[in-house]
Amino acid sequence: MVRVLVLNGPNLNLLGTREPEVYGRETLADVEARVRRRAAALGCEVEFAQTNHEGALIDRLHAARGAFDAVVLNPGGYAHTSVALRDAVASIGLPVVEVHLSNIHAREPYRRRSLVAEAARGCVVGLGALGYELALEAAVRLAGKGM
Amino acid sequence: MVRVLVLNGPNLNLLGTREPEVYGRETLADVEARVRRRAAALGCEVEFAQTNHEGALIDRLHAARGAFDAVVLNPGGYAHTSVALRDAVASIGLPVVEVHLSNIHAREPYRRRSLVAEAARGCVVGLGALGYELALEAAVRLAGKGM
Amino acid sequence: MVRVLVLNGPNLNLLGTREPEVYGRETLADVEARVRRRAAALGCEVEFAQTNHEGALIDRLHAARGAFDAVVLNPGGYAHTSVALRDAVASIGLPVVEVHLSNIHAREPYRRRSLVAEAARGCVVGLGALGYELALEAAVRLAGKGM
Amino acid sequence: MVRVLVLNGPNLNLLGTREPEVYGRETLADVEARVRRRAAALGCEVEFAQTNHEGALIDRLHAARGAFDAVVLNPGGYAHTSVALRDAVASIGLPVVEVHLSNIHAREPYRRRSLVAEAARGCVVGLGALGYELALEAAVRLAGKGM
Amino acid sequence: MVRVLVLNGPNLNLLGTREPEVYGRETLADVEARVRRRAAALGCEVEFAQTNHEGALIDRLHAARGAFDAVVLNPGGYAHTSVALRDAVASIGLPVVEVHLSNIHAREPYRRRSLVAEAARGCVVGLGALGYELALEAAVRLAGKGM
Amino acid sequence: MVRVLVLNGPNLNLLGTREPEVYGRETLADVEARVRRRAAALGCEVEFAQTNHEGALIDRLHAARGAFDAVVLNPGGYAHTSVALRDAVASIGLPVVEVHLSNIHAREPYRRRSLVAEAARGCVVGLGALGYELALEAAVRLAGKGM
Amino acid sequence: MVRVLVLNGPNLNLLGTREPEVYGRETLADVEARVRRRAAALGCEVEFAQTNHEGALIDRLHAARGAFDAVVLNPGGYAHTSVALRDAVASIGLPVVEVHLSNIHAREPYRRRSLVAEAARGCVVGLGALGYELALEAAVRLAGKGM
Amino acid sequence: MVRVLVLNGPNLNLLGTREPEVYGRETLADVEARVRRRAAALGCEVEFAQTNHEGALIDRLHAARGAFDAVVLNPGGYAHTSVALRDAVASIGLPVVEVHLSNIHAREPYRRRSLVAEAARGCVVGLGALGYELALEAAVRLAGKGM
Amino acid sequence: MVRVLVLNGPNLNLLGTREPEVYGRETLADVEARVRRRAAALGCEVEFAQTNHEGALIDRLHAARGAFDAVVLNPGGYAHTSVALRDAVASIGLPVVEVHLSNIHAREPYRRRSLVAEAARGCVVGLGALGYELALEAAVRLAGKGM
Amino acid sequence: MVRVLVLNGPNLNLLGTREPEVYGRETLADVEARVRRRAAALGCEVEFAQTNHEGALIDRLHAARGAFDAVVLNPGGYAHTSVALRDAVASIGLPVVEVHLSNIHAREPYRRRSLVAEAARGCVVGLGALGYELALEAAVRLAGKGM
Amino acid sequence: MVRVLVLNGPNLNLLGTREPEVYGRETLADVEARVRRRAAALGCEVEFAQTNHEGALIDRLHAARGAFDAVVLNPGGYAHTSVALRDAVASIGLPVVEVHLSNIHAREPYRRRSLVAEAARGCVVGLGALGYELALEAAVRLAGKGM
Amino acid sequence: MVRVLVLNGPNLNLLGTREPEVYGRETLADVEARVRRRAAALGCEVEFAQTNHEGALIDRLHAARGAFDAVVLNPGGYAHTSVALRDAVASIGLPVVEVHLSNIHAREPYRRRSLVAEAARGCVVGLGALGYELALEAAVRLAGKGM
Repeated sequence: MVRVLVLNGPNLNLLGTREPEVYGRETLADVEARVRRRAAALGCEVEFAQTNHEGALIDRLHAARGAFDAVVLNPGGYAHTSVALRDAVASIGLPVVEVHLSNIHAREPYRRRSLVAEAARGCVVGLGALGYELALEAAVRLAGKGM
Repeated sequence: MVRVLVLNGPNLNLLGTREPEVYGRETLADVEARVRRRAAALGCEVEFAQTNHEGALIDRLHAARGAFDAVVLNPGGYAHTSVALRDAVASIGLPVVEVHLSNIHAREPYRRRSLVAEAARGCVVGLGALGYELALEAAVRLAGKGM
Repeated sequence: MVRVLVLNGPNLNLLGTREPEVYGRETLADVEARVRRRAAALGCEVEFAQTNHEGALIDRLHAARGAFDAVVLNPGGYAHTSVALRDAVASIGLPVVEVHLSNIHAREPYRRRSLVAEAARGCVVGLGALGYELALEAAVRLAGKGM
Repeated sequence: MVRVLVLNGPNLNLLGTREPEVYGRETLADVEARVRRRAAALGCEVEFAQTNHEGALIDRLHAARGAFDAVVLNPGGYAHTSVALRDAVASIGLPVVEVHLSNIHAREPYRRRSLVAEAARGCVVGLGALGYELALEAAVRLAGKGM
Repeated sequence: MVRVLVLNGPNLNLLGTREPEVYGRETLADVEARVRRRAAALGCEVEFAQTNHEGALIDRLHAARGAFDAVVLNPGGYAHTSVALRDAVASIGLPVVEVHLSNIHAREPYRRRSLVAEAARGCVVGLGALGYELALEAAVRLAGKGM
Repeated sequence: MVRVLVLNGPNLNLLGTREPEVYGRETLADVEARVRRRAAALGCEVEFAQTNHEGALIDRLHAARGAFDAVVLNPGGYAHTSVALRDAVASIGLPVVEVHLSNIHAREPYRRRSLVAEAARGCVVGLGALGYELALEAAVRLAGKGM
Repeated sequence: MVRVLVLNGPNLNLLGTREPEVYGRETLADVEARVRRRAAALGCEVEFAQTNHEGALIDRLHAARGAFDAVVLNPGGYAHTSVALRDAVASIGLPVVEVHLSNIHAREPYRRRSLVAEAARGCVVGLGALGYELALEAAVRLAGKGM
Repeated sequence: MVRVLVLNGPNLNLLGTREPEVYGRETLADVEARVRRRAAALGCEVEFAQTNHEGALIDRLHAARGAFDAVVLNPGGYAHTSVALRDAVASIGLPVVEVHLSNIHAREPYRRRSLVAEAARGCVVGLGALGYELALEAAVRLAGKGM
Repeated sequence: MVRVLVLNGPNLNLLGTREPEVYGRETLADVEARVRRRAAALGCEVEFAQTNHEGALIDRLHAARGAFDAVVLNPGGYAHTSVALRDAVASIGLPVVEVHLSNIHAREPYRRRSLVAEAARGCVVGLGALGYELALEAAVRLAGKGM
Repeated sequence: MVRVLVLNGPNLNLLGTREPEVYGRETLADVEARVRRRAAALGCEVEFAQTNHEGALIDRLHAARGAFDAVVLNPGGYAHTSVALRDAVASIGLPVVEVHLSNIHAREPYRRRSLVAEAARGCVVGLGALGYELALEAAVRLAGKGM
Repeated sequence: MVRVLVLNGPNLNLLGTREPEVYGRETLADVEARVRRRAAALGCEVEFAQTNHEGALIDRLHAARGAFDAVVLNPGGYAHTSVALRDAVASIGLPVVEVHLSNIHAREPYRRRSLVAEAARGCVVGLGALGYELALEAAVRLAGKGM
Repeated sequence: MVRVLVLNGPNLNLLGTREPEVYGRETLADVEARVRRRAAALGCEVEFAQTNHEGALIDRLHAARGAFDAVVLNPGGYAHTSVALRDAVASIGLPVVEVHLSNIHAREPYRRRSLVAEAARGCVVGLGALGYELALEAAVRLAGKGM
C-alpha cells in the first residue's frame, strides 16, 4: 500500500481563521478529513503534519525516506525564499507534489516564484482544499510510477 | 450535467512526437481518451479542442459563454506572453483551470511566469496527462460552486 | 472626404459585459454609434471593425493603405506585447491614433508600456468611449495634415 | 457653466522656440488661443496658467478645489519624476486630464512612464496643440459626469 | 533532391515599400527570385511562403515535417516575443536557419533577443536579401548533414 | 529649552480631506494641536510649518541651523525622489527624525524607498498623527544627546 | 489593562557586544528595563521575549492571539527575507508595530526593504532603544483603537 | 565681451560648512572670487547666482537667453532627478557646461547618472572649486565657437 | 591549543546519498574523519556539528564565543538567503571561514551570491571535502593571527 | 580583386580540441582551408589571422584600412564585453561581417548580446565553419557595394 | 617642475578620421600640440602616449610611479568595462584626471558609467580637445596639492 | 612529479604597495616564496608568473597544456569582466583553482561575480597569501585525481 506524507508549512495551523478572504474558512482539520477520505478512496495511507519551522520541515522530509513513497508538500511562505527546503526536496529521492491553497500567480510579485517547485515534480495551486486531494492522487500515481 | 471545454494551445497537436524527453510519449488523442474516461467517472460532458492560433483560442473562450460551465485550458507557449489571452480568460465569467504538462517552474526563466494564470482560478503543472484529469475534476467542482 | 478605419483588437467584442468595473457598460455597438455620430459631425467616413486575431489586425492595417487616410486603433492586449503589430503600424505610411478605454498608466505594470504606441502618432487613454471620438478627430486632422 | 483650469508645467513658456522639431512651432499663446476657441464652442470657461515651479503647480491644483470643475494638466518633465505632483492630483477630488504635446511613448525611456498619469483620469499624448482641445472636451464631460 | 521551405512572417509582404531606409527597396518577389536562382545553383527545391499570422506560421512549420528537409525562417517581429513559435521550431525535428534583413543587434533593445533563435540551428542577420541566399545554402548543408 | 522645528512637505495642508482612507480624517491643525500638547508635556518649544515647495523645504532646513536643536520632517512625496532634500538634511548638522502618516512599506513600490531617510537619524512610519508625537520625543532626546 | 508582547528576533541577545558601532552598547536587558519603565508609565503589561528561530517567532506570534492586545516586534534580519514571518503578522489579527535599532534606510540595499513591515501597522527605525519605548506607546494606542 | 552665467543649485550656499570631508572647506564666496579672477584673466563677464529652488533654476536658465552667451551650471542634487531641468538646458539654445565639486562617479549609485548632463555640452567633475574655473574657460570657448 | 568549531547547515547530513553527481559520494562522517586527521596534523582541536535549523546555526555560533577560537562554516542553502545568519557571523567576533562542497559560481543564479560570505573572512568553494581541510588550516592561522 | 581580412579572436587557435561538443572538431587550419577554397571560387584574396589579444585585434583592424576592402571577424569572447573592439569596428570605415561558430542565442545569458555586432554590418552565427564561407561571400558583396 | 603623463587608450590613434561627427576632425597629433602649448604656459613637462592594449595601459600607469607627478588618462572604451584598469589607477598613488572627448552622458547606456572614474580624482567630458588642456591644468594643481 | 603553473593577473606586481589596507603588505615575491616552500612540502614543481595583459594570460594558459598538470590562477580584475579568459580556462583541459587575496563577496557589486570561476574547479578567496598555498594543495590533488 502506497504511503504518502502530507506536510504543511508555516501559518497553515491558523487555516480558517487567517485571512479567510484569501485562504477560505476550512480549517486544517477539515483539510485533513478531506485528505483522509480521498486516501481511503485511493487505497493509500497518509500521515498529516504541520510545523512553522523551516528546519523541522527539512527534518521531516529527510525522515520520509524509507517511511513514505511520496510527499504532498504545502511549503507556505518558505516556497518563495528557501533554497534549503528546495535542496531537501531534491535530496530525498521521493516524488514531491507541491500544493498552494491560493493562486500564487495572482498575488504579490514575491509569491509568484516558488524555489521549492524547481525541485518538486509538479504543483497544484489556487484550488483550495481540493488541491490537496488532487495532489494526493498525483503523489500516489508518481509513487506507483504510472501517471 | 456540467459541461467542460478542454482547450489546447500551440504545438500540443504534436504531443508524443515533440521533445518526448520533456513532454512524454502520450499523444493528444491519448490525453483526450483519458479525459473522456475521467469525465465519464465524474459524470460531466467534455468537448476537446486544439488550435495553434492565439486569436482562435480567444474566439473559443468567448464562444464558451453559455455553452460550457467551466474550462480546462492548456495555453502552451501563449501562457507566458499573451495579455490578450489573459484578458479573454478574465472576460468570460467562467471558472478556468490552467494545465501544463511539464513543470514550468523548473525550465527557462521565460516559462516561469504565466500571465494567463493571473486570471485563471488555479493551475496544475508538471503532472503530465494526469494533470488534465485533475484539472477536469477541479473545473467540475468550480462549476458546481462546491470545492 | 477623409476616410478613417476604426480598428478594434482582442476582447473588445465583449465590451459592456467584460469586467464592467474596468471597461464600463457601453457595448462595442454603442461605441460604434457614437463614433458614427461624431464622424457625421466631422464630415468624415468611417469603417468600424473588430477581430481577436493579431495577424488579422496586421492584415487589416496593410489593406488600409490606399483605402483609408488614417486609422484609429485600439490594439487591446496586443499593445503591450506585439512587435509585429508595432511594425505593421510603422509600415503602412498612414497616421495611426491609438486609443485605450481604461487608464493603462494606473493598472498592472505590464500594461504601462505600449509597444504599438511607439509607432503611432499619438494616444488617447482612460477616457472611455469618448476617447474614440477624440481619437477620430485627431485622425481626421492628421489625415488633412492640419493639427 | 463648467469651469476648467488649463495648467502648464516647466519649459512650456518656451513653446515654439524650444526644440521645435520635437514640440512644433506654435507658441503657448497660440495654444491658449486654440483652447479659448474650443472652450467657446463647448460652452465652458477656462483659465490658462503656466509655471516652472513644481510647488506652484501643487499650490494651483489645491486652489482649484471649489474654483474649477476639472483640470487639464500638462506636467511637462515633472510627469516622470514627481510623486508630490501625483499626490496633489489624487488629493483634490477633481477630474484631471493629462496632456503631452509629443508622443512620450516614442522618446527616452525615462519619459515613457508618467507617475502623474496614475492619478489622472486619462491622457492625451502626441497630438500637439490639438491634444489640449481634446483634453478640454474630456474634462468638460468628466466634470458633467457624462462621458 | 533537398527540399527547403522558405517561410516569412509579419509585414514582410510590404518589403520594398515599408521603411525602406531600414529594410531596403527590394520587394519580397525580388527576394523570392534571388532565392530561386540560388536554389537552382545549389540544386535544391524551394517553396516560398508568407503570412502575418503567428498561428499560421506554426501550422506551416508543423506541415513541413515530411514535406521538407530544412527550413529558412524569417519570423519578423514574432522572433522577439513568441514562445509558441520557438516551441514549434523545436518541435519539428528539422534544421531551421533564421534570417533577418536588418541588423537586429543595432536596433531597439527589444529586438536584440530572438527567442526563436534559441531553437534554431543558426542565424544570418543584417545582410539584406543576400542573407536569404546564405541561409538557404546553410539549410541545404544541414539537411545533408555536411556542414 | 530644546527647540524643535516640525516641517511638513507637499499636500499635507490638505490632510483630513485628502484620500482619508489612506491618511485619516485629522487635519494638519489637529496634528499641530497634538504636537503642541506633547511639546508642553516634554518641556520643549516647537515651530510648525508646511510648504508644497521642495526649495522652500530646503531653505527652511538651512535656516534651522542655530535656530533649532532638532527637526521633525514629513517630506511627503519628496521623500522618494529628492536627492536635493536628502542633501539638505545631511548638510545642516542637526538631528532629523522623518515621519510618514501612512505605512510606506505597504504601498506602491516607488514609495518604499525614502532617499531622505538615508540622511535622517531615524523614521516613524504608519502610525498616523501619533507618529508626530513619537518623532518629537525622539528629536528632543537626540537634541539632548541622551537616547 | 492592555497587554503587549515585545518580541525580539535573531542576534538581539548579543546586543551591547555585537557590532556596538552599529547597534550601541545597551544590552537587551537594558532595553527590557527601559521598556518596563515605560510600560509602568503607560499603565500596560508587557512580556519580553527573544529567540533566534524564525519558526519560534511565528509560534510566539500565533500564541499571542487571546493572550495579548498588541505586539512590538523587532524581527532582526528576518525582516528582509521572511515571507513566512510576514504572513504570521498578517494572520493573527493583532496590531503589530515593527522596530529596528539601526536606520535600515542607510545600510546595505538588502536591508532597505522589510517584507514584515508590509503586514505591520507601522515602523519605528533608527532610534535605538528609545524606539522600543515609542513602539510600545503606539502599540498601546492601537490596542485601545485611539491613535 | 563674452557673458557667462554661473548658476548654482541646492545646498551650495552651505559650501564650506556642509560635509567638508566631501565638498571641502572653501565657501561659495571663495568659489565666486576664484571664478571672478579667472573671468578677468579670460576677459569675460560673469554673473554668479545660487538658489535651492528647481523652478527658480529653470527660470534663470530661461532668462539667460539673450542676456548671456553661455552658462556654467552646478545643478547639485537636481542633476540626478530632474527631467524638467534637463529640458530647460535643452531649451535655451546656449552652451551649458555642468560642474560638480565631488566625483559623482565614486559616490552613491543614484549620483552616478546626471540627467542634466544629457543636455549639457560637457561636464567637469571631482575637481573641487578649480572645476568652476575650467568650466568657465570651456564655456567661453564654446560661446566663441572655438574649442 | 587552537579550538575550531566545524559547523554544517541544512541537508549536509544526507551527504553521500544526496545528488551525488553534484556533491560526491563521501558521507559527512567521511568528511569528519578527514577533518579530524588534518586537525591532528595541524595540532588543533575540532568539534564537528550539523543541523538543518537556521536558528540552531545561529545559537551554535553565539555559543562558540569563548568556547572556540575560530569557525569553519558550511551554511548550505542558508548562505544565499539568510541575513540573520550573516549577522550572527558578524556578531561573534571570531574568524569564520565559509566552505561549499560544490562550485557555487557554476550553478543556478540564486546560488552565486553568498550573503553569509560578506561577513566571513574568506571562502573555499568547489573543492569537495578537501575544502574543509583547507578551511580548517585557514581558520587555525586566523585564530593565531598569522596568515 | 576584392581583398578580405579574416580575423579570429581569443581561443580560436585551440579549435578542434577545445570543447568539441560546442565548437566541433575542425581545427582553425581546416577552417582556413575552407575559406581559401571559397575565396578562390568567389575570386577574392584573403588573409587569415588569429590572436588572443584584444589590443592586437584592434591594431589589426586599424591596419586593415587601405590594405583590405572588407573584414570577416570572429571576436570570440570579446564580442560580449569589449566596447573598445566595437569602437574599432566602427572606426575603420570598412564593412565588417561578424561570425560565431556556435549559436550564441542558445547559450549563457552573457553570450546573447554582442557589443561588436552593433557596429558590424551583419552576423552569421551557429553555422560552424560554413559560417566563415557565408560571411566571406557577404563581405565580398559588401565591398563591391552590391548585396 | 611638475611632470604629467598624458595617456590615451584604444582607437584614439584614429582621431580625426574616426566618426568625425562624434569625435571631431582634430587628429591626435593636433591634440598633442595643444597639450604641449598648454604645458608650456603652465610650466610643466608632459609625455604623450597612446596604445590600443589594455595591458599596456596598465603597464604605463605602473611605470608612471616615480617618473611622473600626475596622469591625464583617456581610457577610451576601456573606461566602461575594465576593472583591471580601474585597479591600476587606484594602485599607483598618483592623481589621475580622466578625460573623454565626447559627452558620454548623452550616448549609449553602456557608455554612461565609467568604472575607471571611480578611482580617478575627477573627469572632464564632452569638451573635445580643450578637455585635455583643462585636465592637464587640474593634474598640475593636484600634483602640487593646491586645487 | 606534479607540475603546477601559478599565474597572476593585472596589478598583482604591485602587491605590498597597492592599497595595503585591502591587499596586505606582503609583496608578490613574498607570496612566491611561500608558494615555493609549500610546493617543496607537497613535493610538486611550480612555475610562478605575472602579467597585466589579458591576452598574455590566455596565451600562458594555452601553453600550459602538456607543460603543467594544474593551474593556480589569480585573474585579478579580469575575473569579473573577461569571457575570453573564462573560455581559455574551459579550453585547456587542466584543473584550474582560482584564488583572490581579498574577500570579493564583501566588496563592490561588480567584484562579487567571477566569470572565470564558472569554468574553474574551485575558488579560494579572502585568505590572503595563505590562499595561494591552499589553492596549490588543491591543484596538486586535482592533478592527481584524488581530492
